[in-house]
This record gives sequence, C-alpha cells and structure tokens, in this order.
Amino acid sequence: MAKVADKYLKVDPWAIIEEGFDQERNRTSESIFSLGNEYMGVRGYAEEGYSGDTLPGSYFNGLNEEQAIGNHYKGIIRSLRYMVNAVDWLYTRITLDGEQLDLAFSKISDYSRRLDFRTGTYCREFVWHLENGKQLKLTFTRLVSMTMSHLGLQRVDFEPLNFTGNIQVCTGLDFGMIHEERGQSMWNGLCSGGADGITAIMAETLTTGNKLFSGFVLQSPVQLSPSRVERDKFIGESFTLPLIEGERVHYTKLAVNCADSSGSMAADVLWKEGMELAATTAGLNEAEIFNAQTEYWKGIWETSDIVIEGDPENQQGIRFCIFQLYQTYHGDHPGYNIGAKGLTGEAYRGLAFWDTESYCLPFYMFNNPKAAKSLLEFRYKTLPEAMQRAKAVDCEGACYPIATIDGTESCDLWQHSNLQLHVGTAVSYGIWHYVKNTGDREFLYNKGAEMLIQISRFYATRGQWGARSGQFGYFGVMGPDEFQLMVNNNCYINLMAKKSFEYTLETVAHMQAAVPEAFAQLAAKTALREDELADWSSKAEHMRIPLDQDSGVYEEHDGFFDMPHIDIHSIPVTEFPLYSNWSYDRLYRYDMIKQPDVLMFMFLYSGQFSKEAKRANYEYYEPRCIHESSLSPSIHSILASEIGKPEEAYHFFEFATRLDLDNYNRNTREGLHTTSIAAAWMNIVYGFGGMRSDGERLSFQPSLPERWTSYSFQVMYEGVLLKLEVTKDSVRIQAVSGGSTEIIMNGLQIKVGADRIVLPLGEGMMAG
Amino acid sequence: MAKVADKYLKVDPWAIIEEGFDQERNRTSESIFSLGNEYMGVRGYAEEGYSGDTLPGSYFNGLNEEQAIGNHYKGIIRSLRYMVNAVDWLYTRITLDGEQLDLAFSKISDYSRRLDFRTGTYCREFVWHLENGKQLKLTFTRLVSMTMSHLGLQRVDFEPLNFTGNIQVCTGLDFGMIHEERGQSMWNGLCSGGADGITAIMAETLTTGNKLFSGFVLQSPVQLSPSRVERDKFIGESFTLPLIEGERVHYTKLAVNCADSSGSMAADVLWKEGMELAATTAGLNEAEIFNAQTEYWKGIWETSDIVIEGDPENQQGIRFCIFQLYQTYHGDHPGYNIGAKGLTGEAYRGLAFWDTESYCLPFYMFNNPKAAKSLLEFRYKTLPEAMQRAKAVDCEGACYPIATIDGTESCDLWQHSNLQLHVGTAVSYGIWHYVKNTGDREFLYNKGAEMLIQISRFYATRGQWGARSGQFGYFGVMGPDEFQLMVNNNCYINLMAKKSFEYTLETVAHMQAAVPEAFAQLAAKTALREDELADWSSKAEHMRIPLDQDSGVYEEHDGFFDMPHIDIHSIPVTEFPLYSNWSYDRLYRYDMIKQPDVLMFMFLYSGQFSKEAKRANYEYYEPRCIHESSLSPSIHSILASEIGKPEEAYHFFEFATRLDLDNYNRNTREGLHTTSIAAAWMNIVYGFGGMRSDGERLSFQPSLPERWTSYSFQVMYEGVLLKLEVTKDSVRIQAVSGGSTEIIMNGLQIKVGADRIVLPLGEGMMAG
Repeated sequence: MAKVADKYLKVDPWAIIEEGFDQERNRTSESIFSLGNEYMGVRGYAEEGYSGDTLPGSYFNGLNEEQAIGNHYKGIIRSLRYMVNAVDWLYTRITLDGEQLDLAFSKISDYSRRLDFRTGTYCREFVWHLENGKQLKLTFTRLVSMTMSHLGLQRVDFEPLNFTGNIQVCTGLDFGMIHEERGQSMWNGLCSGGADGITAIMAETLTTGNKLFSGFVLQSPVQLSPSRVERDKFIGESFTLPLIEGERVHYTKLAVNCADSSGSMAADVLWKEGMELAATTAGLNEAEIFNAQTEYWKGIWETSDIVIEGDPENQQGIRFCIFQLYQTYHGDHPGYNIGAKGLTGEAYRGLAFWDTESYCLPFYMFNNPKAAKSLLEFRYKTLPEAMQRAKAVDCEGACYPIATIDGTESCDLWQHSNLQLHVGTAVSYGIWHYVKNTGDREFLYNKGAEMLIQISRFYATRGQWGARSGQFGYFGVMGPDEFQLMVNNNCYINLMAKKSFEYTLETVAHMQAAVPEAFAQLAAKTALREDELADWSSKAEHMRIPLDQDSGVYEEHDGFFDMPHIDIHSIPVTEFPLYSNWSYDRLYRYDMIKQPDVLMFMFLYSGQFSKEAKRANYEYYEPRCIHESSLSPSIHSILASEIGKPEEAYHFFEFATRLDLDNYNRNTREGLHTTSIAAAWMNIVYGFGGMRSDGERLSFQPSLPERWTSYSFQVMYEGVLLKLEVTKDSVRIQAVSGGSTEIIMNGLQIKVGADRIVLPLGEGMMAG
Repeated sequence: MAKVADKYLKVDPWAIIEEGFDQERNRTSESIFSLGNEYMGVRGYAEEGYSGDTLPGSYFNGLNEEQAIGNHYKGIIRSLRYMVNAVDWLYTRITLDGEQLDLAFSKISDYSRRLDFRTGTYCREFVWHLENGKQLKLTFTRLVSMTMSHLGLQRVDFEPLNFTGNIQVCTGLDFGMIHEERGQSMWNGLCSGGADGITAIMAETLTTGNKLFSGFVLQSPVQLSPSRVERDKFIGESFTLPLIEGERVHYTKLAVNCADSSGSMAADVLWKEGMELAATTAGLNEAEIFNAQTEYWKGIWETSDIVIEGDPENQQGIRFCIFQLYQTYHGDHPGYNIGAKGLTGEAYRGLAFWDTESYCLPFYMFNNPKAAKSLLEFRYKTLPEAMQRAKAVDCEGACYPIATIDGTESCDLWQHSNLQLHVGTAVSYGIWHYVKNTGDREFLYNKGAEMLIQISRFYATRGQWGARSGQFGYFGVMGPDEFQLMVNNNCYINLMAKKSFEYTLETVAHMQAAVPEAFAQLAAKTALREDELADWSSKAEHMRIPLDQDSGVYEEHDGFFDMPHIDIHSIPVTEFPLYSNWSYDRLYRYDMIKQPDVLMFMFLYSGQFSKEAKRANYEYYEPRCIHESSLSPSIHSILASEIGKPEEAYHFFEFATRLDLDNYNRNTREGLHTTSIAAAWMNIVYGFGGMRSDGERLSFQPSLPERWTSYSFQVMYEGVLLKLEVTKDSVRIQAVSGGSTEIIMNGLQIKVGADRIVLPLGEGMMAG
C-alpha cells in the first residue's frame, strides 16, 4: 500500500513553518501546531474565532465524561470514559470599524505561522486588509508553560500600517466549546467573577463532576480599562486599544487553569486555590515566562536531541516528534497516561492503549526515566480497576483495559475489549524492560511485583487447555494483528503470557531470597498461594507456541496457514482504508495482517531469536502486512535493518518522522499520531542505531542510511547519558554525563566513559 | 441442563383453561391465550384495562417501524425493522357506581378463562364484587376471524347477581398502545370519525408511514345510545347499559382493521376501503361469525389433528401447538413470514429466522401445501432485498438475512448478521424439500430456480479457498451452533452450501432439458453464465467437510476437536441462561454447543448418513449440547429415536409440546415460542412416526413411546392425505382422501389407498 506525502510545510531544522493560510489544510495545521505540557493541551486553532472548517480543542489530562453503552451482555462494558473539550482560555474577538476579524472572510496578506522547538512557542502573524482600506498587522504568540503547568500565555501584537484609530478587543474564558463527536459543550457553569484584576470562571463536567477553574489577568504597556462581559459558561473582558500608525502595541493574557479531575474537591476550595494561583501569576513578568520556557527546552535538547546530517526533512521530522512527545508527557504529574492522539484532538477519545508500554516507554526509559516510571505507575494506580475488569469477564487477577483514560475499560467494541489480551502482557513486559534498563528494583518490589502477580492470575484464569493438543493457550482472542478477529492460540499472546508467567516466577524467587520481608508483605497483601506458582509454572511450560518446524515460521494462530491467500498488492488503492471500503466481516478472512504480530514479539524479545528465524518470519509476514496501523512500519524497518535489508528498512522509515507533517494517512486533521511519533524515535535508535535493550547489557549495531551523512543520538542508561555518533566510516561513543557503563557494540562488550571511543563502522554497517 | 415444568393450567383435550386469576403469571397467560389469524394477533390481555403487570399487544403482519443503528463499519446494517404494537381494538372501560373494573384492585371470584381449539374463541368470566356489595358476573368473549381476516369480534355479557342498576361502558380503538421496548406509541393519528353507526380512526407509523384503519360497529339486543369520545390517537363510544337482577345482557363489538403496510396507499383510499368493509361487517350476524369460526377449525382438525391416547398432557400440548401454528400462519396472505414469537409478543421484534424453512416448513408442507408455498414466496418476493444485502457485504447474488420482517436484514448484532450464513441454504433446502414432496415443478421453474441461482452466486463469492488445504469453504462464520462465534469451515455451512450448489446445477440441467424456453428466459433474466456453472461445480466438488475418519465424527469446524472441554453437567443451574450469567466472550471458548449443528444436517439429509454415523456423531455432540435454543431438543429426540435410544428420545420430547403451557424456559411472558411449536410437531411425526422426507419417497419407521397407548397423525403427500395410527402392536395406514400413493414403510415400498393397511409394529419399534 502506497503512502503518499502531502508536502506543504517549510523545512527548517528547529521549527514548523506555514507560509500563507491554506483553509483546506486548516484542521491538519491545527493538529500540527498544537501546544501542550502534559497537564493541558491546545490545538493550533485561531483564537479570534474562525467560521471556516476548524476543530477548536482545549484538553486536560484527567478531565473526562462518561457515556452509557446500550449492550446488555455480561462482561461487555456498560459505559465508557472519554476526554472532553474544555475551556477556550485563548478566546479573543477583534473588531475594527465594525468589521470583525475572521480568517474565513477577512482579506489578509503575509500570513505565516511558526512552531518553535527551541522556545516552545507558537507564533502566527498576518496583515489584515479591512474593507475600508486600513491595514493592520497582527501577531499572536502563545505558549503552554512546561515549568508552570497551570499557566498558559497569550500575547497579541497590533501594528497599524496605514492608519491611527481604536480597535475593540474582547478576551475571555469560554466553557461553551463544543465536543464535536457529541455536538455539545460537556460543561455546566458553576460560578464566575473575580477581583484584583483577575477574571475567572469555574465549571464542571455534566455527569462526572470533574471541575475546572480558569482565570486570567491582562498585562499591557498601555492602560486597558476593561469592562466585564458575562454570559452562560463564559466570562471575559472587553476593551478598546488606541492604535497609532506605525507603532506596535500589545497586551498579554496570563491564563491559569486548575483542574480537579477527582470530582471530589469542594467547589469553594478549588475556586480559592485557583484565585490564589492567579494572583501569584499576576505578579509574573512576561519575559521571565518566555525565558523559562526556552531554558526548559534547551535542557531537553541537550539530552534528547537527534541530529541528522544530510537529511533536512527527517531532521525536522524527528525533532518535531521529540518536541511533541515531551509536550504530551514528561512525567511531572503521576497518574497520567498517553492518549493515542495525546492532547491534540478528540479522535480515539483521549484513550491510551498498549502503545504506551510497547512503543512509548522505550523513548522515556532512555531519555527521562522518571517519566517512564510514572507511566508504569499509572498502571499501578489503576490496578483496582483492572482487578474489577477481570472479575467482570469471569477471571481472576488484573485484566488491563485495551483502551482507557482512567483505568476502566473504555473500548465499546466488545470484539476488542473482550478479546484483545495484549495490554496485560505489555504492562508486564514494560516492568521487566524498565527494571532491566534502569536497575530500579525498588519500583519492582513496591509496585511492579504486585502487578505481576495479579497479571499472572488473569492469564492463568483466562487461558485454557486444548482438548486435543493438551497444551495451554488462549481461545477466542484477537492478537495485535486486528485483521484476525477471534482466533485460538494467537502466537503473540501465548508467548507473551508465557514470558509474563516466567518473569513473575523469577521475581517471586528473587524477592524471596533478596527481600524476604518485603516479599512476605506482598504475599500477604495479594494472598499469594504456593499452588498458584506451580500452576503458572506448568502453564508457562506447556504453553502452545505454534511453529512450523520446517520453515521456522511461527503460525500467527491455529489455522492461520490455511487462511485464504490474498496478494495485498492486488487490492486497488481506492479500497483503502479497508475499514471504510470493505464489508466488516471481509477484513477478517485472509492471510492479510494489519500490523506486526509474530514480528512484534521477535522484536520485543530480539535476543531470543536468531537472525535466520527473524528473516524467515519477516519474509513470510511482511508481504502479508498492509500496515493499516501507523505503528507498523517502524517495527518492520527495525527488523529489516537487522536482517540486512537496508533498502526496505529505509523504505519503511520514510514516513516515520513525518507521518503528521506530511499527513501521510490523511487524517492528521483529527489529531497527531502521538504514539507513532514514539515509534519514529525507536526506528532511528533501534533501527539504524541497532540498539537492543532486551539483553543482559544494552547493545548497538549501528548502520547509516545511504542518504544520510551522519547522525547522532543520546540514551540514558543506568544513569549514564551515552552519546552515539554514526558517520559514513565511524561510530563514536562516549558518556556525556553520569560516569561510565558497559555496553555491547557490534557484539563486543566495551566500557564507555567520558572519553570518546571511535570505532570503524562495522562490516555491512553501511546501510541503504 | 434441567428444564422444569411450571404446571398450572388445567389439562383438557380441546382447550386451555385457567381457573382463578394469578397476577404473577398474568403475562405468561396473556401469551398463551393469544388469538391470531396471520393477518393480525392479540395477546390475551384484559381489555377492560389492568394496572398490574401486563403486556397489552396487538400486532399486524407487515406493520413495522425502523430504527437507526449507530455503527459505521461497512456491511454492518445501519437500520433495522421491527413489528410495532398497533391498535387496541378491544379497548373497554367499565364503571359501576363510580367504581372502575380493574383486576389489579377489584375484588373478584369464580374467575376462569378458556381458549377453545374447536371454536377458535377465547372466553373469560368472573364475578365482580363491588365495595357496595353488588355482584356482577362478566363474560368476555373474543375471536379473531380465520375466514374474514380483517374482523375481530368482542362480546361482553353482564349478569347482575344481586342488584338492578346502570353500568357505564366506554369501548373504543386506541392507537396509544405503548411499544414496551421503545416506551412509546409508534403511531401518529391521521383522522377519526365515522358515520352510519361506524366509529373509526386511522393512524400511521412514525417513520415508515405504514397505515392502519380501524373501525367498529356495536350490536346489542338493547338500545345502547352511545356518545362519541375522542382524544389523541383514540376514538370510542360511551354508553349506559341498564341491568336487571338475574338477567343476562350483552353487547358485541365487530372491529374491522385494514392495514396498508406498503406505506404507499393514499390515506383517503384506505379510509374509504375501511369504511366500506365496516359497513359490510355491520350487516353480519354474530352467530354466523361464531359458526364460521367453528366450521373453519373443524376443517383444520379433520386434516391436521394428532391424537394421542394415554397422555392427556401431550394431547393438549400438541393441539395447542397446531392451533397456534394455524393462528400464526396459514398462507392466505402471500408475503408474510413467521416471526419467532408469531404475533404474540414484542420479543425478537417480530423477526423471522431460518426457523421458517428449517422447522416450520415441514408442518405446512404436510398439512397445508399452499401455506408452505406461500412461505417460500416470501423469499421470492424479498429476493431484491437479499441481492442488495449480498452487495452490501461485498458478495454477489442473494444473501438472505438472518433476521427479517420485510426482507431487509434486521439483526443488529454484526456477529450474527454478517457471520451466520445458514438462511440462504435453508431457503435452498426449503425449495428442494417442498418441490420433492409436493411435486410443484411450476414453482421451481417460475420462482425457485431464480432464487437457487442467486443463492449459489452468494455462496460462490462468500466462500474462499484454504491456502494450505486447497479446499473450498467458509471462513469467518458462525454456524447454527451459536456458541462458536467466528470459525472457519463450519461443517454445517460447508455441507449445506455444497448441497445448494448441487441442487442448483441439477435444476439448471433439468430445466435445460425439460423446459428449454423457460430456462432461456431464466438464464437471460439472471444473466447466468456457463463459467459460473463450472465454478459452482468445482466449489461443490472441493468443498471441505471436516471429518475424523477413525471415529466417523464430523468436526463442527476446523479446530473444534481442540476446543477446551467442559463437562456441561458441572455448570451450576444458577448459571443458566449462560447469556445472562457468563461473560459474553466466555460462551465461545469451549467444546460446548448451543444447539444441533452437525446433527442438524444429519437430520436434514437423513438418508445420506448411516445409522452408525448418526450414532457416532450423536454420542459425541449430544453430551456437549446445552439446548439453549428451544429448537434443539426436538432434533435430538428425532435422532435418538432413529438410533435406538427411545428413553433419550422421550426425555427430549418431554417439554416439546408444552414448552409454553408449562413455561419451561420461564420466558413465555414475552410471547410464545412459535417456531419451536413447529418443532414439536416434527418431534412426533419425524421422531416417533419415523417419517423422513428427504428420500425418493416419503418413508416411515414408527415407534410408540412406552407411556402412550396409541397415537395418530395425518400428512398430505403429493395431494394424498395419509393417516397413520400407531398402537402398541400395529401400524395402520390409509389414504383418507386424494387417491393413493407409494410410500416406504419400515424400509419397504408400499402403495397406500383408501383401504386401511394394518402392519405389526416393527421389530424394535416399541419405544421407551
């Protein structure tokens, strides 16, 4: 299936730039120009109001609503949670001589906007040509503070090019924002008002009672004399700004948003907290806020930058990915997870999937281990919900939801929520992966082990014994490959469950020996029984792993090899996406796969499979894979690199960093592919860098794409920040900070410290 | 799974009788005391209004509403049709001395009601004890005319036992009847009024525009002097009746209902038609109407009665079944089908399933061949909808819906509507079965063959070739056994599709030779191509039929033998019905089956499988079957009879005829199990009578249940009405009318005419 780039934005190493306003692409640009700080996010919508095609979106982690589901079979969810559209704290309306600014109708010129990775700001400017001939240059700058989570800043500059006169501005806080899927605001206004220059409003979600306080103060070199505007779900200030020809004047709005996602905070307490925070914020200096933001990002780029020489597009692309990953999540607030679209759109309802542990966790583990730990802590915090879910589906232990925002299952397609079992094993893998690469045994003892025990309980009770085979496995499941809807003994699930049992047993044995008291507490808390351990051991030992011995190809599930064959290249391009163009049942009746399944576990447990085994399985499954998941190409690219198919590796990488910038899937308008962005990082580091993190020590086997002159990346390993630079003939590695550590380079264990080690680029390391 | 009778009603050979009013059982009784004439049906609700637990239901074949479905995947239905609750033409309110009659509150005595199979009437009587001491005996009689489809009759008798005085009656037509599932009336009133003693109203369904005219006239030996009562969706007449102590007085309401289910008839045309019919009806004499009804039923019992000596309960049960089958359907109105609950309740939404061809058709074929043909004509009439459905699921030809009321698919569970393929083969089997046993080749040429071609096209395009097996089959399907949700190569579907291809090819070959002109027209109309015939032939030849050669057991689908085993007797009774008590996904992960699947095709094509093969498969599958479908036990009983397990045969028969009378499934309150009722008939005729209708000639191998003294039944075969009587030592057979015919009795072909043939009951024919 051909993915075709929609090249549009300017290429720049440190920014995203649009020159000229393209109404057709507006929603897509809104997604790309999103800002966020994990606490909140805003799409790059026009704050002055836009009557064309737009999706104004302002989202907060943890603010969500509930929807009832009309299905009455037991074990199928009765309600789901979804992220709501919250307050428009950027709300602005601008009127000059009776004409209201609206880019859908207003005549403009010299339009450009810029998202800057170094300053963490979004800036948009243009000249407004009024019907009466007046020309006004406007500049809108905004940031969402990475250092003060509650704070959003908006600055509006006015420069009258050929006139002197007054402009009317109304700036406010609007809870009337429409949740597009529902077609309504999801908020009830609670109160509004303010004092001491603070204008504020508080509202709560319709049914879940999540509360949000929003307040702002205005700063300007000129006297504003605002007057209050109030209506349902809205409060604002209206003022007139005198403009003098050729002189630039501005005002700045410092907005403070305080969310109570628990729904349990008393309204007056939240109001008081919000007003105090707003009062403190009022004392801040605009320049300090911009500087703090730039300093923050400077620190990020020092540890997490990837430099690519000779490929400006991917240079821009990968920096955009890293920028958006940090904006979405950086672990300052425990209990958050990463929605499939981050905080950039309503699609996927703000829900997090197995993507978190399978695709995002490595990025954080090797850049910001605290954030990685915080992601795992989301699963610990939601262990009670996972245990309730296990009960609901007639099992024991913990069944982690396939899609969630608050720990409860929120996927309303039973075929996914009841049949897809790969989140629990992803969590178990994530714990193993994190502990292995950070050495954080405290986390394992205090939280990880408890999750492992409950996860194993679930897999022990959900699985069954084949009547004829006598082997253990999972019947009636959907693996990661969502084009095989309900199968028996999906190889991925079986293997991952086996690994999960084994790691749990290993952890139990280790804790019994190393931390007997902690283990005793854990065993008591979880009511762990000896016979359970024996049961898990037996189930791991007898786990069915369907494998064709002759070819070395794992069978994706029982009977997969007999699935009717389809040459995926014979499917007309017009039939994609298949979900929209094929009868639903037809998707599931071929040997066609949506995304890696067997290949996925061969990547996750890379060290346990020979290069030959990987090649055999790659050559069988890759031609059958249509990559209808945006997560798919990177895994194929990483494996292709390893098995010596550099051209294929580069081909699959081609749209990884620019999936959204070039709108390859034509759906960026709905929001960014946030979790795919993490896969782009993996594609470079694991793919070309040849990093593997599933062995005893971290290892590398770098190669250089032919189109590139060189590239470099850094990874944090056991507290040591390693920097790798790969050129056409060498690999240079050094510990930038944190002392020294042992790693494996091209199969040989070496010690890396502050001194740069220069090695020749290995045999066969020059890649396509 | 134990089914337990709830014995309550009086046993009587020719009637259903309740003595004393049981409020707890009221809804169940309402279902059992239903009346119908295939055009319309009414539940046995209290026409005077009842504020206790009741489901007042008045249903018309063809009057239905549409509901949108919120699923957007292609090939999944976007809307469905369901039968609406229509006009309450029995509406009556009775007030005496300010006290209104309502059995939820009124004090009553001597309550009884009776549904009479010979007169086709439902009669209810009781004495009302007023708070002021007055006692009034009331008798409500109703019938739904079998000879005049539009006509319903209601008669109310009053007999004051200890007083003289006036009673107030309001009788009317109410379109405000609530559709319980929707919680509202599905009607908009169009107009009301009347003239010449006719009171009438017309309404249409909310979105589909199905119209219904309802009018009535009153007859009484006394002068009524009614005054009109009108309100939204209602019209009625109010009058005072003078009562004299000890004297019985009555009035009769003749109601005329005229339905336009097309939604295309002009309102004024329907009104005129309704008024004319009402005027004609006004001239009818009540006694004539009662007599015509009795005469009609006399004719039915002469041809269709089953007499059982020595078992009063089953005698009553089977007559109830035959009575309800005729009430539901008798083929006077082309284009109707049989809903799973007939016209007796909202459950299953009035939808028809494969039950029609698989369970009901034989009853009609052998009792009322015109009705059988009419059922098949429903499928012909809805061929266009089936062809649209095939297209919607990316196939060619005709895909008959799994659940329908008007030919469109109306099952909103995609896993059933998209995966269950056994309606098309049931239609094809039905055509074959009907033509074989009636010799009606005209139907085959004019309609059947066209359906066969379009059905074969569907099965040719829905099926696929196994990549490894090289065999043809169906992937991603659910067979009749609904406890295996999505499987490959369900043996039933594969075998039935093979048979369907073969019969189509045989029909084509026959027509080419016998009726070349008709065939040429058919080929042109269907654009039939030579290569299609070759394709169907190849697919039939290479059809995969999973069979374990050693044991002779057919594998229900690929991989079934490895499904985890569960001892179904180990499931606690409290967990039934499993649909309510097990997590939905759990139902589908065992070797447990819901209803016969392999055994079903062994019954349908009985002659093609040896007794040994049937025994092997019965012994494998029966212990795995939980009979969660009410259609299941009869098929098991029939096979058990054949393979010499008379006790099991009788055990499975035990609740067949009295499923509803004794409320075995505890859900008769929702409506009667109309299609199961047909299975009860099959259970006696095919089971104990040993009839088989899939061979060259009709054959019998009768046995006698030990508990019975004798039994007799009649079947219409090629125009000859055969009567079989089975006693403890003999089988007597004769042609009651229609000349003579050849049949096979105990393996020997004999000619049966007017002279009764008496044979000894065969070896091993004395059954448990």
